[in-house]
Amino acid sequence: MLHVNGGEGEMSYANNSLLSRKVLSSTWLIAKEAISKFCHQSNFPTTTFTMAELGCSCGPNALLIASNLVERVEEIRKRLQKNALEYQILLNDLHGNDFNAIFRSLPSFLEELKTKIGAHDSDFGPCFFNGVPGSFYFRLFPTNSVHFFHSTYTLHWLSRVPEGIENKNKGKIFISSTSPKSVVEAYYKQFQMDFSMFLKCRAEELVIDGHMILTMLGRTSEEPWSKECTSFWEFLSLALNTMVAEGLVEEEKVVSFNIPNYMPSPGEVEVEVLKEGRFSIRHLQVSRIDWDFRDDVETSHDFSKCVRSVIESFLVSHFGEAIIDELFRRYKKIIVEKRSKERLQLTNLTFSLIKVK
Amino acid sequence: MLHVNGGEGEMSYANNSLLSRKVLSSTWLIAKEAISKFCHQSNFPTTTFTMAELGCSCGPNALLIASNLVERVEEIRKRLQKNALEYQILLNDLHGNDFNAIFRSLPSFLEELKTKIGAHDSDFGPCFFNGVPGSFYFRLFPTNSVHFFHSTYTLHWLSRVPEGIENKNKGKIFISSTSPKSVVEAYYKQFQMDFSMFLKCRAEELVIDGHMILTMLGRTSEEPWSKECTSFWEFLSLALNTMVAEGLVEEEKVVSFNIPNYMPSPGEVEVEVLKEGRFSIRHLQVSRIDWDFRDDVETSHDFSKCVRSVIESFLVSHFGEAIIDELFRRYKKIIVEKRSKERLQLTNLTFSLIKVK
Repeated sequence: MLHVNGGEGEMSYANNSLLSRKVLSSTWLIAKEAISKFCHQSNFPTTTFTMAELGCSCGPNALLIASNLVERVEEIRKRLQKNALEYQILLNDLHGNDFNAIFRSLPSFLEELKTKIGAHDSDFGPCFFNGVPGSFYFRLFPTNSVHFFHSTYTLHWLSRVPEGIENKNKGKIFISSTSPKSVVEAYYKQFQMDFSMFLKCRAEELVIDGHMILTMLGRTSEEPWSKECTSFWEFLSLALNTMVAEGLVEEEKVVSFNIPNYMPSPGEVEVEVLKEGRFSIRHLQVSRIDWDFRDDVETSHDFSKCVRSVIESFLVSHFGEAIIDELFRRYKKIIVEKRSKERLQLTNLTFSLIKVK
Repeated sequence: MLHVNGGEGEMSYANNSLLSRKVLSSTWLIAKEAISKFCHQSNFPTTTFTMAELGCSCGPNALLIASNLVERVEEIRKRLQKNALEYQILLNDLHGNDFNAIFRSLPSFLEELKTKIGAHDSDFGPCFFNGVPGSFYFRLFPTNSVHFFHSTYTLHWLSRVPEGIENKNKGKIFISSTSPKSVVEAYYKQFQMDFSMFLKCRAEELVIDGHMILTMLGRTSEEPWSKECTSFWEFLSLALNTMVAEGLVEEEKVVSFNIPNYMPSPGEVEVEVLKEGRFSIRHLQVSRIDWDFRDDVETSHDFSKCVRSVIESFLVSHFGEAIIDELFRRYKKIIVEKRSKERLQLTNLTFSLIKVK
């Protein structure tokens, strides 16, 4: 079962999630605009505003977007002079996620939120937090019950490793320029099945005029093996192969291992949205972020640790725990070397969707 | 922060919750009758049936009642030839509860449930499980959103130790026949504040005609210091005092310690229900259960371990971990001795309430 590293240790996701925080802040304007669009005078929720974070994980980011959304809705509510709202904040991730860690942080989070929005001096309604365990490729919430979906860096995760590719993708652990056509096709087919199921489920759960803001790793190239979206798994397969060469990892173990990711192009996403038929695409933003981004405040970001905090549980279930430290030492070395020669960037796609029927 | 012992070890609540399972089965008929009353032809939910377990803890009982309720509603649904329903199952407990343990058990639980009700051959709708962390003495769910509340063995827990009793209840850790009047009054006042707040919050959250089935430790005597409801804390205070006498526990530590429980009489509950005004009492059942009950199937029940699995976290926060093993060794010895002389029983009150306005 895939889950990010729980707890608060050095390799925990909580301590290695600066990258997604950075991405969150770069997509916040789109979410903010969607909230404004949804909360106009005639459409303003009467009792409860329900928002869901899909793939919330367990770090500080899980609650960051909820905090921003509540703050934004409160601004609009006050301007429109509406009655106090109840906020229902639904935090979804897979069953193995460390929900206990999120729940323990809620009391202090709520105090900070109240201070931030000046709730102690005004008619701020209650906030109800729910943990909702399960895969977002299935139904998670009652019909017509959610006003706003949000998801960052989770939808490039497939529900499973594509069928039939085991032992066909030799020396690689993901789509690569040398992968057989059948492997690339299997990945795309799995993406289509998963993403169409995702849209179908959310269309049932979202109210009419409800919004979804989805940010995922993607690509602008037509080629799914483009370096733009495969490099960081390519480098991990390089690291694994050096360990195979030295007899530290069995070759068959690598041959039978494939990462269940797919980084779609905007067109591939649009095709599925059109097929589903109940959503309209209001906005698409393509953004890029350096693997080794720096900003003025944060200095402790390490891309290899960030990848490790996300993928470790999946690697351990296949390779065992013993190789992990050495693997990521080599991975980090490869990244440093490559980065001295070229700029390494991730491509993010952010879609703003409205349920129109 | 009070929480039952998590995990699956010898002292875990999961492994020491036979007593509440036994109580659950003895109150099931009342819950079953309430479901039948709620799900009549004209009132049958159209899309979603939402039930909440308040104080679900983390053992197998957390999901047992949900399973029984869903099974019962499905029976009625088929008889009434209604469309498939979505089930929303809200599992509430305090922030420190081990929700991860419940969530990990959900996939297999759901499979068993589906088999039990023959869902694989019929139009069984989806079940959505949410963990809802927080105290039920505050609002937990949106207005008018729940059809059915259920709670077993949690409402005798107060929100806090009553104010002003510290150092006044010498040699005791709970209401006792030798406690000063001011201590007994402070306990009752805290019960009134807490239980009235509980009713007020649930009245907001429950739909009209919605039901609540509440089972708590209580008493039939008018006297709150009756042995009927104080013995098991009285014996723990005896055990603590033997450790004080031997210098193993500081006397001041015991003097400043009081258990935040109140076991009400039926009349005391009724007064609060009448004051709240939105509920009607449909049924009250008083039942008794032997501390050392035996049944044909289960043999591993140990009352002292059961108490320990519930109270350990609270004791540790006051006395530290070092004394716990010895304390419960002595507690068990006292119970065995007392039991050889008298029959030891718990009194349970089960209320079936309907929201009438």
